[in-house]
Amino acid sequence: MSTDDSRWMVAALALAERTRGRTAPNPNVGCVIVRDDQVVGRGWTQPGGRPHAEAMALAQAGDAARGATAYVTLEPCAHLSARGPACTDLLIAAGIARVAIALGDPDPRTNGQGIARLRAAGVAVAVGLLAADAARSMAGFLTRRRLGRPFVTLKLATSLDGCIALADGTSRWITGVEARAHAHLERARHEAILVGRGTWEADRPTLDVRLPGLEGRSPQRVVLSQTHPHPSALRASSLSHREREGAAEPRKGEGDPAWIPTPAAITTLPADHLLVEGGAGTAAAFLREDLVDRLLLYRAPIVIGGGLPAIGAIGLTDLGSAHGRWQLHDARQLGSDRLEVYERTPCSPA
Amino acid sequence: MSTDDSRWMVAALALAERTRGRTAPNPNVGCVIVRDDQVVGRGWTQPGGRPHAEAMALAQAGDAARGATAYVTLEPCAHLSARGPACTDLLIAAGIARVAIALGDPDPRTNGQGIARLRAAGVAVAVGLLAADAARSMAGFLTRRRLGRPFVTLKLATSLDGCIALADGTSRWITGVEARAHAHLERARHEAILVGRGTWEADRPTLDVRLPGLEGRSPQRVVLSQTHPHPSALRASSLSHREREGAAEPRKGEGDPAWIPTPAAITTLPADHLLVEGGAGTAAAFLREDLVDRLLLYRAPIVIGGGLPAIGAIGLTDLGSAHGRWQLHDARQLGSDRLEVYERTPCSPA
Repeated sequence: MSTDDSRWMVAALALAERTRGRTAPNPNVGCVIVRDDQVVGRGWTQPGGRPHAEAMALAQAGDAARGATAYVTLEPCAHLSARGPACTDLLIAAGIARVAIALGDPDPRTNGQGIARLRAAGVAVAVGLLAADAARSMAGFLTRRRLGRPFVTLKLATSLDGCIALADGTSRWITGVEARAHAHLERARHEAILVGRGTWEADRPTLDVRLPGLEGRSPQRVVLSQTHPHPSALRASSLSHREREGAAEPRKGEGDPAWIPTPAAITTLPADHLLVEGGAGTAAAFLREDLVDRLLLYRAPIVIGGGLPAIGAIGLTDLGSAHGRWQLHDARQLGSDRLEVYERTPCSPA
Repeated sequence: MSTDDSRWMVAALALAERTRGRTAPNPNVGCVIVRDDQVVGRGWTQPGGRPHAEAMALAQAGDAARGATAYVTLEPCAHLSARGPACTDLLIAAGIARVAIALGDPDPRTNGQGIARLRAAGVAVAVGLLAADAARSMAGFLTRRRLGRPFVTLKLATSLDGCIALADGTSRWITGVEARAHAHLERARHEAILVGRGTWEADRPTLDVRLPGLEGRSPQRVVLSQTHPHPSALRASSLSHREREGAAEPRKGEGDPAWIPTPAAITTLPADHLLVEGGAGTAAAFLREDLVDRLLLYRAPIVIGGGLPAIGAIGLTDLGSAHGRWQLHDARQLGSDRLEVYERTPCSPA
């Protein structure tokens, strides 16, 4: 593995981000094909899961793929599908000389067979380059494979003293426009977005992506409620702002939400990435069940004092056991607010 | 003003930090005397306020002061005192050729007269170099001059969700050893430290400086209580851990605390720097009266959920008015914890 190898794999990982949250049940893979230090093909899993990244990159490269190196963030698939040929076969047929793979594919239909078949065909294969980054990039797919549920991000927007609203519930606005735009971009990277029934009925949140050009990327809405409401109440409460304002056409993310009775029921959602947006009881319910993989904290430089806390009781009985579960992965300034991204520590029970 | 000038003034400001919190009612001033690009004298206001920084630096420089430049963080005093001569006269007598001053002295006994007298004696004077840094350095002195009260720092140690303890009050430990050591260093920079009566009686906090070599730097303890307790209760509650453990000799910061009935009564404290350490009601009382100049936030990467909030109700009725009052001045990592220092914005009402 050379420095150049790392550089090209970083490029493949960047491409993989393009459809994060839109490829379930397939992984969001990125691929870069390089010949003589020039990129001749780029691909990423397309929305819905097909075509695969390799197929797209090879189609772009055409004859230039012959003798080239392919950088892929996940082991190329080895199985035929009604929706397309195996990427392993495509790479071999295109004359790719070398394949650098970040991560092996845990799918039992591939799981090492892609690598074996490439090698059997005389293609050089290197595995493990930037594996940790690739695992983060495909956390949704991997969490579904490993735990049978989506990768869960809990989003909080708080004051410096950890409040999400005034005591009367007012929460507009704690964070500024930059932070709110970033939060909407995060929504676009999730197949599903969840709030508790209290938040749903109090705020009637649209939970959509309000960013120019990304309006169609709003996630499926999910409401956590121990009791499913009566159908008529459900219909009323599922009316989005837009619908109530008289717009005719429902968009993705509008219409009836899905309802689930417990956090554990997220296993039933057709989503590999779930964004939990509130309120405090819902955040607590997910944390109590240890079903949060990532914390997205937007903090405004304001003091509220005596406001609504961000997280309800999670059953913590001693401070010692609270430590070591979270590590800071990323932090950035967004206008006058600060974003911190915490991830579950590798050693933490999952 | 040259780059070198800035460099030397930064050195003078660093010296001024040495006795922050120990020079009241005098300002903590720093002084560097430079000749031919070499430091020939260094001084800083000594504990208790005398000797002044310039006197100390001139004594160190001796004859080398002749023709040198003196960098001082505050205008040299122009008034004679029973405790020593005016620094202006000392600088002139020593043959200093040039004086660079960060900030004019608002003390009516000096207030421009130091500068005028130096110039009248043929000494070149430049004023305003790193004035904002000097104002921050001498915030205690300046706040006392301007508002008749100490500069108030509110310290909070919280979880990511803004809790200072479990619901049952357990708070040992939220932050790690590095953050706690830093908090003790902050104590050493304050003449006085305040807690509410609830915290005082529940925790019997020693509020001392537990850092090797700085044990003697513990601040005067102050308790906020609307009703002064009965003398016997007071005596019992003022017993520090050390005393109760049988140590014989009371140290600075031990013995009876001062009691004040309201945040506004901090005007009566013989202190230019006051550190407010809790709990939530006391923090809220100071914020409600707009008596907090600086927030010291230590945040541990833990989630508590349903714990005790850091700050009680402060009478905020709309979120709009919460914005624009605080700006981030400093941030650093302390072990796995993060320290953020916020300061009152210049435009914020004081």
